[in-house]
Parts: sequence; structure tokens; C-alpha cells
Amino acid sequence: MTHIDDGFVHVVYFWLKNPGSDNDKNAFFKSLKNYLGKVDVIRSKFIGTPATSERDVVDDSFTYSVILTFKNKEDQDIYQEHPAHLKFIEESSSLWSKVVVYDSLPV
Amino acid sequence: MTHIDDGFVHVVYFWLKNPGSDNDKNAFFKSLKNYLGKVDVIRSKFIGTPATSERDVVDDSFTYSVILTFKNKEDQDIYQEHPAHLKFIEESSSLWSKVVVYDSLPV
Repeated sequence: MTHIDDGFVHVVYFWLKNPGSDNDKNAFFKSLKNYLGKVDVIRSKFIGTPATSERDVVDDSFTYSVILTFKNKEDQDIYQEHPAHLKFIEESSSLWSKVVVYDSLPV
Repeated sequence: MTHIDDGFVHVVYFWLKNPGSDNDKNAFFKSLKNYLGKVDVIRSKFIGTPATSERDVVDDSFTYSVILTFKNKEDQDIYQEHPAHLKFIEESSSLWSKVVVYDSLPV
């Protein structure tokens, strides 16, 4: 068993306004992937969609999940203000209705 | 930039009933770490605590985060029913008041 990361883990769930629209989903994904690729402080990344479940405890209502890891909080702060990240928000925020972020540091 | 995983990503947030109790936190963490170590289908793991934030979009109210990756959904299903996982729930579920799970598959 390996460890995912020993740094700062930034997890984001996006709920798109039109989760049934392939156009919206493709536009969001393309924008996200494009801009994430331009931020060199990102150490590792994961972009996902929900694995549906019958279990009550599982929230599978989101449209996209993103897990980014950084060396430390300072690198995540650089990412937050990075022109590519701001451009992604400018370009795609009209597509989503809700965003929830969970930031963690390893125990 | 590397990818976290190409398999099934299982993310869990735990809210403990007494997040200010070091006893409860230590008991939870010890139980979690012990039993996760016994499940060989887990490909990688991360155990974290919140990185606090002033940003409205960030939920830093949870007590522990866990990110586990599996080769595929079938391996995650094995984990759900694994005796070590069930033992962890039996031993520690009295310590938490809320659990939210987000399961993702890579795009």
C-alpha cells in the first residue's frame, strides 16, 4: 500500500447546472484539463465522475470531482491565484451551480 | 504532473461527535490506521485533517478525511465487506456523528 501524498490535498466537487448536457460537460472538462495542465505547482491530479451507489452515505449527485495535490499550503495558494486557474473560473463558472472544496493535510 | 490513480477513488469525510477530544481523535485514528493496513485491495491511501480556510466555498468542518484508491469498483466492493473494514465501523462508529462518501471513476 502506498500513500497518495505527503503534502496538501485539495478536493473539489462540481455540480453543473445542466449535468445532462454533453455540451456543457465537454466544455467544462476541456477547460479544466487545459488550465490544470498549465499550473506547474500541481504535483498530481485526478479528474473523475461519480461512481453511483445505492448506499445512503454516498453522495453521487456531483457532476465532476477533482483531486489535486501540492507540496504544501504555499503551493496551493500559488495555484489559487494562478492566471490559468483564474481563467478556468472565468471561462467555466457559468456552467456550475455549486462547488464544495475540502482541503486536507496529512495526519 | 502525475496522475493520482486510474482506478476507483473512494473519499470519505468524518465528523466526530467530539472533535475537540484528543482521546476520541486518537482512538478513531488508531482504529482507522490499524484496519486499513489489513486490507490488501487498497492501492493507496491518505488520511488527513482539515486545512482551515476563510474561503466560503471550502468546507473545513470535518474532523478526518480518508482517500483510498482501488484498481476498480470490484476491489472497492471487496473492501466494503472486508472483516477489517467492518471491524473498524463496529469499533469506531460511536465516535462519529456524520459521514459523507464521494466515489469517483476517472474521466
